[in-house]
Amino acid sequence: MPPKERHLARREAHADRTIVRLLNGTAFGGETLALCAGPCSVESEAQIEATAAAVAQAGGTVLRGGAFKPRTSPYAFQGLGRRGLALLRAAADRHRLAVVTEVLDPRDVRMVAEYADMLQIGARNMQNFALLREAGLSGMPILLKRGLAATVDEWLMAAEYVLVEGNPNVVLCERGVRSFDPATRNLLDLSVVPLLAELTHLPVIVDPSHGTGLARLVEPMSLAAIAAGADGLLVEVHPEPADAASDGAQSLTLEQFAHLTTRLGEVAAAVGRRIGVPGLAV
Amino acid sequence: MPPKERHLARREAHADRTIVRLLNGTAFGGETLALCAGPCSVESEAQIEATAAAVAQAGGTVLRGGAFKPRTSPYAFQGLGRRGLALLRAAADRHRLAVVTEVLDPRDVRMVAEYADMLQIGARNMQNFALLREAGLSGMPILLKRGLAATVDEWLMAAEYVLVEGNPNVVLCERGVRSFDPATRNLLDLSVVPLLAELTHLPVIVDPSHGTGLARLVEPMSLAAIAAGADGLLVEVHPEPADAASDGAQSLTLEQFAHLTTRLGEVAAAVGRRIGVPGLAV
Amino acid sequence: MPPKERHLARREAHADRTIVRLLNGTAFGGETLALCAGPCSVESEAQIEATAAAVAQAGGTVLRGGAFKPRTSPYAFQGLGRRGLALLRAAADRHRLAVVTEVLDPRDVRMVAEYADMLQIGARNMQNFALLREAGLSGMPILLKRGLAATVDEWLMAAEYVLVEGNPNVVLCERGVRSFDPATRNLLDLSVVPLLAELTHLPVIVDPSHGTGLARLVEPMSLAAIAAGADGLLVEVHPEPADAASDGAQSLTLEQFAHLTTRLGEVAAAVGRRIGVPGLAV
Amino acid sequence: MPPKERHLARREAHADRTIVRLLNGTAFGGETLALCAGPCSVESEAQIEATAAAVAQAGGTVLRGGAFKPRTSPYAFQGLGRRGLALLRAAADRHRLAVVTEVLDPRDVRMVAEYADMLQIGARNMQNFALLREAGLSGMPILLKRGLAATVDEWLMAAEYVLVEGNPNVVLCERGVRSFDPATRNLLDLSVVPLLAELTHLPVIVDPSHGTGLARLVEPMSLAAIAAGADGLLVEVHPEPADAASDGAQSLTLEQFAHLTTRLGEVAAAVGRRIGVPGLAV
Repeated sequence: MPPKERHLARREAHADRTIVRLLNGTAFGGETLALCAGPCSVESEAQIEATAAAVAQAGGTVLRGGAFKPRTSPYAFQGLGRRGLALLRAAADRHRLAVVTEVLDPRDVRMVAEYADMLQIGARNMQNFALLREAGLSGMPILLKRGLAATVDEWLMAAEYVLVEGNPNVVLCERGVRSFDPATRNLLDLSVVPLLAELTHLPVIVDPSHGTGLARLVEPMSLAAIAAGADGLLVEVHPEPADAASDGAQSLTLEQFAHLTTRLGEVAAAVGRRIGVPGLAV
Repeated sequence: MPPKERHLARREAHADRTIVRLLNGTAFGGETLALCAGPCSVESEAQIEATAAAVAQAGGTVLRGGAFKPRTSPYAFQGLGRRGLALLRAAADRHRLAVVTEVLDPRDVRMVAEYADMLQIGARNMQNFALLREAGLSGMPILLKRGLAATVDEWLMAAEYVLVEGNPNVVLCERGVRSFDPATRNLLDLSVVPLLAELTHLPVIVDPSHGTGLARLVEPMSLAAIAAGADGLLVEVHPEPADAASDGAQSLTLEQFAHLTTRLGEVAAAVGRRIGVPGLAV
Repeated sequence: MPPKERHLARREAHADRTIVRLLNGTAFGGETLALCAGPCSVESEAQIEATAAAVAQAGGTVLRGGAFKPRTSPYAFQGLGRRGLALLRAAADRHRLAVVTEVLDPRDVRMVAEYADMLQIGARNMQNFALLREAGLSGMPILLKRGLAATVDEWLMAAEYVLVEGNPNVVLCERGVRSFDPATRNLLDLSVVPLLAELTHLPVIVDPSHGTGLARLVEPMSLAAIAAGADGLLVEVHPEPADAASDGAQSLTLEQFAHLTTRLGEVAAAVGRRIGVPGLAV
Repeated sequence: MPPKERHLARREAHADRTIVRLLNGTAFGGETLALCAGPCSVESEAQIEATAAAVAQAGGTVLRGGAFKPRTSPYAFQGLGRRGLALLRAAADRHRLAVVTEVLDPRDVRMVAEYADMLQIGARNMQNFALLREAGLSGMPILLKRGLAATVDEWLMAAEYVLVEGNPNVVLCERGVRSFDPATRNLLDLSVVPLLAELTHLPVIVDPSHGTGLARLVEPMSLAAIAAGADGLLVEVHPEPADAASDGAQSLTLEQFAHLTTRLGEVAAAVGRRIGVPGLAV
């Protein structure tokens, strides 16, 4: 085992900070913030089209949406699968958005990669090492969410499983950890943002939707994440949260998302960042 | 989604308690306790043979051992793979032991099933739903460890993923949860033993080795687990813990294991249980 | 600051294990287990008399009962105060039981000591250093509960505040810690029992009532605590749990308590212990 | 017990948001942020004078400093006591700062109130109900820190103990909760800032020093706290952190504090707030 400071994810191993770029120009890790938004699950063409239009209009550049959903219960909605991916891709293309979506099974990595610009490894799979290795071998940009009770060290080691396969394009995503207080769904740990900036050269974004589980906390925690130095956000947005197939309680409406991005621009400016795509600020 | 009381794992769904039986006569869930022991990792023929002999001699009936290891670091020893499985199987057969071993990748389920009597789903994979479904489809007895920060409800829902594929042979294994106190590796939650006896018809065993991380706590916590009503134990045993490739600090020596089983017999008797195989008590 | 191994609570500082003795012969820390039981709150003469009679009958030797209650809400029942102490004392005396009761305020230590044989410092006050020092100065036997999220090191340091005032009579009481799983009120950490046996010479008992919050888990967790090596139990018992002013959900009926002590005797024997008072086993 | 929505701390019980004002003009809860800073412990006249000068110069208006320290170990530095209070008061007066300092013992409330403008109830004493009642009776402004593992509901109920004594001047202070990750001392829970804004009319400030335990995380987490909507900050500052009697690792130097306030002003402006005293912005 190489000494820790030789690990590929560690700051010491890499002279510059990594910037992960997607084909539509989105960059994770530079001066411009990466704004990823969309529904928990892709449900229909109308739903994803309305969302994509609003995300693009508000300054987002990455469309998120689940087609394969990791659900606690086998009886809960599991996603539209390949059809959901096709809907997601088409809506994103109509609005020049990139696509990030979750992959659950190592056997699906290639198929999902046909539709996506970035593969998400979810919190429950942060230590699914078979999946991490396939994600590494795919060469695709990877969004690696923190596990429900993962230490920062374990999270960086999970990233190492991707990096060691020759794939340098890993973005870390804080999404809250388990806590004793039922007041929020998870406990969003923003201190990892500056902590990771010391420990690793990889970009870090924040998911305030899963991080709190409450739509009305998403805007203030988004502002806080950017003030703390995050390189972007992953936000759940839905045209009709009350009717969402999953995670409605934590989804913003399209209007709330537009409001968020306006306020976000002001806080971003106060810390020397901006939203949009590099060279093409909103 | 069926109402919770109709879920297959729930006590209400099943008139009798489930007894999961292995080919060598081991039963999880009856009057006789199931005693599973062996090294964290299969390292060599000599190591696994010495362990198997000692486990059988002391009254254990299931040999555990890892051939595919889920390691936090990609640079740590990852197990001997298929060769490890073959060594494990051969040693078990020489001593009439059953084999339980972990599977990490849904693509490996069939291969591992060729060597094992029972497939272990580890804590990190408790919500690896692709793996759970393959485990269900295999029809093999499944040992489902609790996730690092899984609630009891989530754990039962993970079992549901196996059951819903038509496989009724699931044994739950408590192995400690994440805590704020670094004094032990995990916090062994024995209260789930009587709690699960209310909620589910599935058998429950306890892993005091991972549950504490400290070899010297394994014996008292094993006695406590049985007193609380556990249906068996999963214990790490190694001929030379100080030289173990993994988890040496929590492994019993062969002598310590023999001492444990002696004391265990006394506590088991006090709560109306015994060790060994049904009809063939030690 | 003296080096840790010189701390008064540490095993290294004391050749023998400490046995804390009460006037009625109860001993914490010897071969005989100390069985403490009673209601959460003293509510009436009838209630405490019925409980005391049943506790004594079943083999308990210490009557617990709260007269000053630390309640989360200022609007909840706060206890009967001094009148409660008098009722408690009188009922205990009628049945040759010792009295343990909680003190909340350093200004009340002397007054409570007039009625009690042992002062309880509750979980919320484990680091109330003013109270710990007064408890130390009182010279009374002290029952020190573990804080809601206290590490073992912090707990021993809290005991040190009592010991350093010249009072060697401290009994530690595990009562569960905060956890992410709402299935139980707290997470009872039995691994501290053998861990503390290594680290300190002080006796350790277990409170399975607060430790689980569910009456039906109290018996199995009591058996487990004794199997793990605990020196005694602190159990909530009430003649009519459904009508209790506080903590009814976790209180045993008098009949359940009698059933518990019977089973307890069998497990105690299996680990070389017994219940009752030294020289006068039940 | 009144229904929860009738509790004095609840938003529903109070038409307007509470603004807690100190004699030097500091206001907690209005447009202007309250900036409280100073050393963990008052150590000497030179130390507290240098700190007070720098705090005032950088725009802080409240000097914090401990004279009675709640230390895990009885052998650790316990503070200068009354002499520390006198030094603190004198230094604050020389720079027109208000004083906030912790009180540990209900018997000390009146004495500490002679020197302080605001009494701090520390995390370990959040449910020290005797102390809370005395704090309520004192009529002094109270800074109530969140307990180490307190839920938001429990925290508000602790505030209720002060309010119910007729003292409406309570400021809540988030300072991090216990977590499983040793990477930081505590886990700073900024989501309580917007959550409390919904639940209560009381002002909320954040302590990023205890909240992270690492000086280099204090600036980014301070910016994040203000972006999330906090009404102020409590920051540890020391002329020579490396020589501090306590908490050096989490203390800012005087220069770092000045840097923080400059950046803070920019983020405050972005969310419609400013630093300084009302009517006299820095």
